[in-house]
Amino acid sequence: MSPQSDLLDEVTPELVRRIEETLDEGRPDEVKRLLGGLSAPGQAAVLEQVSEAQRDALVALLRRDLDPEVLTELDEDVRDDVLDQLDSKDIAAAARELETDDAASLLEDLPEAERREVLAELPAADRAEIETALAYPDDSAGRLMQRSLVKVPDNWSVGQVIDHCREAEDLPDDVYDLFVVDAAGRLRGSVPLGRMLRTKRPVPILDIVDPDIPSVPAMADQVEVAHLFRDKNLVSCPVVDPERRLLGVIMVDDVVDVIDEEAEADLLKMGGVGSDDMHANTIRTVRLRALWLAVNLLTAVIASLVIGQFENAIEKIVALAVLMPIVASMGGNAGTQTVTVAVRALAMGELTAANALRFIVKEIAVGGLNGMIFALLMGGAVLLWYHDWRLGAVIGAAMICNLVAAALGGTLIPLGLQKFGVDPAVSSTVFLTTVTDVIGFLAFLGLATVFLL
Amino acid sequence: MSPQSDLLDEVTPELVRRIEETLDEGRPDEVKRLLGGLSAPGQAAVLEQVSEAQRDALVALLRRDLDPEVLTELDEDVRDDVLDQLDSKDIAAAARELETDDAASLLEDLPEAERREVLAELPAADRAEIETALAYPDDSAGRLMQRSLVKVPDNWSVGQVIDHCREAEDLPDDVYDLFVVDAAGRLRGSVPLGRMLRTKRPVPILDIVDPDIPSVPAMADQVEVAHLFRDKNLVSCPVVDPERRLLGVIMVDDVVDVIDEEAEADLLKMGGVGSDDMHANTIRTVRLRALWLAVNLLTAVIASLVIGQFENAIEKIVALAVLMPIVASMGGNAGTQTVTVAVRALAMGELTAANALRFIVKEIAVGGLNGMIFALLMGGAVLLWYHDWRLGAVIGAAMICNLVAAALGGTLIPLGLQKFGVDPAVSSTVFLTTVTDVIGFLAFLGLATVFLL
Repeated sequence: MSPQSDLLDEVTPELVRRIEETLDEGRPDEVKRLLGGLSAPGQAAVLEQVSEAQRDALVALLRRDLDPEVLTELDEDVRDDVLDQLDSKDIAAAARELETDDAASLLEDLPEAERREVLAELPAADRAEIETALAYPDDSAGRLMQRSLVKVPDNWSVGQVIDHCREAEDLPDDVYDLFVVDAAGRLRGSVPLGRMLRTKRPVPILDIVDPDIPSVPAMADQVEVAHLFRDKNLVSCPVVDPERRLLGVIMVDDVVDVIDEEAEADLLKMGGVGSDDMHANTIRTVRLRALWLAVNLLTAVIASLVIGQFENAIEKIVALAVLMPIVASMGGNAGTQTVTVAVRALAMGELTAANALRFIVKEIAVGGLNGMIFALLMGGAVLLWYHDWRLGAVIGAAMICNLVAAALGGTLIPLGLQKFGVDPAVSSTVFLTTVTDVIGFLAFLGLATVFLL
Repeated sequence: MSPQSDLLDEVTPELVRRIEETLDEGRPDEVKRLLGGLSAPGQAAVLEQVSEAQRDALVALLRRDLDPEVLTELDEDVRDDVLDQLDSKDIAAAARELETDDAASLLEDLPEAERREVLAELPAADRAEIETALAYPDDSAGRLMQRSLVKVPDNWSVGQVIDHCREAEDLPDDVYDLFVVDAAGRLRGSVPLGRMLRTKRPVPILDIVDPDIPSVPAMADQVEVAHLFRDKNLVSCPVVDPERRLLGVIMVDDVVDVIDEEAEADLLKMGGVGSDDMHANTIRTVRLRALWLAVNLLTAVIASLVIGQFENAIEKIVALAVLMPIVASMGGNAGTQTVTVAVRALAMGELTAANALRFIVKEIAVGGLNGMIFALLMGGAVLLWYHDWRLGAVIGAAMICNLVAAALGGTLIPLGLQKFGVDPAVSSTVFLTTVTDVIGFLAFLGLATVFLL
């Protein structure tokens, strides 16, 4: 991972500090000049990095001068904060300049009443498009698509298509494929621009069409869309309704955002963070995290109840209390390794019913072998530390038990959650730690009770 | 996260099982027919999901019939295994059909001698291109780029460019932008195909060129390239040498692979897994994971040494042994939340010197507040459990100490590692657990010694 990027070269910590200082010194024109020199993602990065009070001051200063693209680049928490400060006229002005998909995502989180106000400010055509987009479920292909595309009838010639493109003044630069539709608007296929450029004018467009291009239904989940782009190396993909009528097109840059979002969500979920709370305020962050900590407290209490059953053993051999966290911790770490590999493989479609059994068997073998390695290591260390070979043998045996249990838990828990339709990234680790703590303490203290007392 | 994708619809567990059975029954033609109906990513998925022995049998069966695209889609461990079975003539035949960047990544992991054999089998032009690609460092823009692009002199007219495209028979379909270079081969800018289509033939190409397009140096790291594509919503990006001479072009689908790789690497590193070992064999997996477990064993032993200092207290109040894992575990979980947010924000360039202090202060506030919440909860529970308000007060105070320590460790450790050029995703959690275990046991047992004995 390298922190260097074009954006980081543009928005240096020094620049952010300079903007903050200039703002504090009350020199609005200089602030505007500094911000004006930045790209939209750059301005978004500045708004994300300054303090909340300074962000509010910046937004108040810019208002209508704020590039609408900046709004689409902002983190959700920051964007909500910025939108709070703009009135419905400002937001409508921004929405008008954006692609339908971006405008829809700008409006989706607004309170119902304000959203209606903003929509009322928009020209009828824009309003209808945005309302159609908002009618699709969140995270669906219909929400992700844009409507501006080049669509031509299937009875045209290449020459007619070229003339049409020349006349259409507002044709966006980022068009890479033309779509051919029949009289009912049903998708017949696509033609890459490069191919059209190389074809003579009288040739019917249908002669050079790719009929078997992939398309997605508007109701498809964005994760499926991302998989499709990945599998087929797509740059754009048409979106169709159940009758295969062409509705819009999804571009790869929007899919890159989806891939980033999904990767972030998986990483954060595995780390016990529900959503990216980096830009949330303190109270919201406390609330988001407390929920997860409460679940973990329950796990820890269950483990304590197990220990409580062996108070008698601990009173007699206090070394048990000293050593028991080692067994639990090694199980937790080994299990986390397995869970991580399983969750990623499930997300990428690499772990399925076809190879699940092989995966479980391999993980148990890995757990058993690593269990033996660390049983020897730790058993030897305890022998040296406490000069008691029976204690060494007990910790070694407990280590093997717990690393095998970790392998079983680390595979069966995510597979089971997935089977029951629960996202394995969210809750696998907490179930796993319960297993490895309970088995770790039970095996170590139980074996000690049997063999050492 | 949804497991449904086009690929998963194509490669169902039933199909994989049917291929395995057909193979076992010795019906090679039927196996070929089943595989032949699949796309390249589909065939790759099958090779990844069958057992190692069956994979070897499949490769032996297919050999030259194996679509070279399949090799580029395979996971690294599986690909190495497949390449082991092909001789240099087979590999050369595959390399010839691939883009330079894919061919280079096919050859990069071969043993030196075999790589030279494969290169010797290739036509001189292909060999030179692949050798040039291999000369760039792994994970650099130079390695990622492909050389097939449309490059036109800056003194041509649009008509000349169109004629040139018509004559170039082998022009790939996935060309979206033309690149304009001066007499010395230096990049002057690019022209989107759509714009050229709309321009009259006599117009000089320089009149419609975008001169300020982003480009990357060939030595740039692929992570920087991915950031650039993200920030500028690019579909392709030219690669230049230090004199700004055009060397090649990077396409967005290769960048999507980079983004996937990086996200996977971060997730796996945070989970204590060095590399995607899902497809590695058991022994290799044991070795990869044992390293990390050994580091964790050290952490656990350090925590035990801390507990060892309080044997006396534990002997007198055995409840301390029962309760102490709760304090340590809550600290570990809260710290992991903070570390996860910090690591992700560092990777995305959202956490910089400009807002680090604000981030640390917020995390300490969050830690303190959650500390108080769980101090009250756990203190109350202990009061009910052991009927000892002093023990409740001690566990509460220790909880607050450890959650604040977790916030400090969770922010300072990744920031410090990043500052010293160490990847924070790899080692943050192990340092953090050391902090939260040591402080957790120290605070709880120390306070108990002072106030309860």
